[in-house]
Amino acid sequence: MKIAVMGYGTVGSGVVEVIESHQNTISKGTNGQTMEVAKILDLRDFPGDPHETLFTKDFNDILNDDEIKVVAETMGGVNPAFDFTMKLLKSGKSVVSSNKELVAQKGPELLRAAEESGANYLFEASVGGGIPIIRPMSQCLIANNIEGVAGILNGTTNFILTKMIEDGMTFADALKLAQDNGFAEKDPTADVEGFDACRKVCILASLAFGKHVYPNQVATEGITNITLEDVSYIASAKGVIKLLGQIKYINENKIAAFVSPAVVFNGSQLASVNGVNNAILVRGDAVGDVCFYGPGAGKLPTASAVVADMVDCVKHINRKKFFGWGEGAEDYVADYKECLQMPFYVRAKASENKIKAAFGEVKFLSRIGQPSDEKAFITDIMTQNELEKKLEGFEVINIIKVTNY
Amino acid sequence: MKIAVMGYGTVGSGVVEVIESHQNTISKGTNGQTMEVAKILDLRDFPGDPHETLFTKDFNDILNDDEIKVVAETMGGVNPAFDFTMKLLKSGKSVVSSNKELVAQKGPELLRAAEESGANYLFEASVGGGIPIIRPMSQCLIANNIEGVAGILNGTTNFILTKMIEDGMTFADALKLAQDNGFAEKDPTADVEGFDACRKVCILASLAFGKHVYPNQVATEGITNITLEDVSYIASAKGVIKLLGQIKYINENKIAAFVSPAVVFNGSQLASVNGVNNAILVRGDAVGDVCFYGPGAGKLPTASAVVADMVDCVKHINRKKFFGWGEGAEDYVADYKECLQMPFYVRAKASENKIKAAFGEVKFLSRIGQPSDEKAFITDIMTQNELEKKLEGFEVINIIKVTNY
Repeated sequence: MKIAVMGYGTVGSGVVEVIESHQNTISKGTNGQTMEVAKILDLRDFPGDPHETLFTKDFNDILNDDEIKVVAETMGGVNPAFDFTMKLLKSGKSVVSSNKELVAQKGPELLRAAEESGANYLFEASVGGGIPIIRPMSQCLIANNIEGVAGILNGTTNFILTKMIEDGMTFADALKLAQDNGFAEKDPTADVEGFDACRKVCILASLAFGKHVYPNQVATEGITNITLEDVSYIASAKGVIKLLGQIKYINENKIAAFVSPAVVFNGSQLASVNGVNNAILVRGDAVGDVCFYGPGAGKLPTASAVVADMVDCVKHINRKKFFGWGEGAEDYVADYKECLQMPFYVRAKASENKIKAAFGEVKFLSRIGQPSDEKAFITDIMTQNELEKKLEGFEVINIIKVTNY
Repeated sequence: MKIAVMGYGTVGSGVVEVIESHQNTISKGTNGQTMEVAKILDLRDFPGDPHETLFTKDFNDILNDDEIKVVAETMGGVNPAFDFTMKLLKSGKSVVSSNKELVAQKGPELLRAAEESGANYLFEASVGGGIPIIRPMSQCLIANNIEGVAGILNGTTNFILTKMIEDGMTFADALKLAQDNGFAEKDPTADVEGFDACRKVCILASLAFGKHVYPNQVATEGITNITLEDVSYIASAKGVIKLLGQIKYINENKIAAFVSPAVVFNGSQLASVNGVNNAILVRGDAVGDVCFYGPGAGKLPTASAVVADMVDCVKHINRKKFFGWGEGAEDYVADYKECLQMPFYVRAKASENKIKAAFGEVKFLSRIGQPSDEKAFITDIMTQNELEKKLEGFEVINIIKVTNY
């Protein structure tokens, strides 16, 4: 079967490479059909590339080619990927995407268009790179009411935090190392401020609970406020700081969804996820906790997830894969500060007595070089609004949520 | 749709419970169809059970009921489960199984019968309990050449090893605790000797490489020789002992597959899998290492995997799910002692000089209370046959394989 690839960057060129080098395994998945890359859309020139004859700069060359039934969209960004994807789906071609930004922003519209034309729109690679998560969640865990999801969804920030925790590097040094290694962009905002993780939370939440969540509904906090002092205090409590995307079921019409640094205690499967790896923990009422771990990004891992979706499209060429995922609502995502109870790590300039007067008995933490007027402690469970009320009049240095995953 | 359950033990009763309590999520997966438990086969009586009217002791009541299209086989054991499953598949009914012994012993015959009648035979619950692994491996990782699989596949032995490692309990005490907690049978042989893990290795190997592996082809070693002394030595090297099932690709006509204790170094996702949990790590040439973690047994986790397969059968009622898995061959599984190279942990009564003369420079380990004539060390990579030749004339206390997962 002929396929096309839109966007010949890291992931797109990986898709072409994986297809060409894995015809054997692919044909096992497609009942013997091969996959042939017939067109590659990119505005750039790639002189000397062995696929030179396949390149086009005109999207219509793909749209109007009746032999191309499945297209990989690995362009990234909302525009023009949205317009192209929409036209392809409406014409009955299936589209496979690694573009988390597009799925998070426009998922419901694209899924509806696919629904109407009978094409498939799949996006396993948009969350967790090569880690199988969308299919396991939507199929293998179908006999569960999902209670919550917590994920380490961004490799760049996990690399930075790992370097801070294991090697005592400062945030700035760890970021620079990530940039030098190609794990972070020159402008690292989307990663370190949590925006990338936020998009993946949107996709996971939509999938877990069947209603779309938009990025602007997800309270998002990055890791730029995390210091080595916080890392030390939390190590003394046998925990680590991770940037987590968290989703909690509240009721049929309400969930909580947020991205923030979080204290994860050792013993959790999330605590041992290091470097650029990702992991997604799903808590179901029947299964308990299951966790999916692996490379969250990278050329071939992500490409292998894109190609697996393409195989599925080839196999289901005249059939619809069902995704139960509709429009959300403005009040669908609750204010987690008001409705979720959890313990908090607090670092403040305050006396033990003042802290005990406000919080009762708490667990105090320690670090080497701790100034006598600085205290760090972990509170009982409460909402963040309650916490902030109790902390009125305190000189707070940092607050980090404590997760129960 | 009407379904039946054969075997009303822990898993079977869990299946009935999950179906009844999850109609909402189930109907999402089946495009709106409900699932109704119409018959339960068990030779025992369950007086007072709310499903009393559904029980039958006659298998033909299920076989001859044309309305029943999907059957869960949660009986365990090869007989009579094999006979029943065969008859159901031949009659065109789909069967879903949690019975690893049956799948490991009779998988190819049953898959062929399903193939011929157009029914489905699915068994997600037979490996890793509630952990999604079969579908992710066969679908999500299709664009990979799988290089190897390593799994903690037995919760009982992992519980025992965790207690030895974390609490310094002896094997005997940890086994007793497991029995008291219901994690181990009165006769623990199948668990502690690795037979249960062996069956799961057969299923994973068959799935990963498309040819069936039988239990008698898998060299299997349990954990009864592991002592607290070994645990201490390996802790000094920042590692832990786990009972691993390992599968390695050698070439198109040959794999290695074995079950044994193995040294796993901290930092591996397998090292932090504690208690009765399981984890399966899959190494693909494109994706790298991905790992699936969760409860490897238990009533509701396993039941939730069975029901997910039943949902898939309902959805695919007139369609075949494709599994690329044929008969193996007698010489398909290589002698790993001859063809696989790895480092080994060796504990022996010997001098450093004698060890250096045989092995060159090695990494010596230490433990509190180490006798002066006892040494423990980790070798360079070599085959086990090479190792055993080098150790001729040594008074060896224990040898444990070191894994590279």
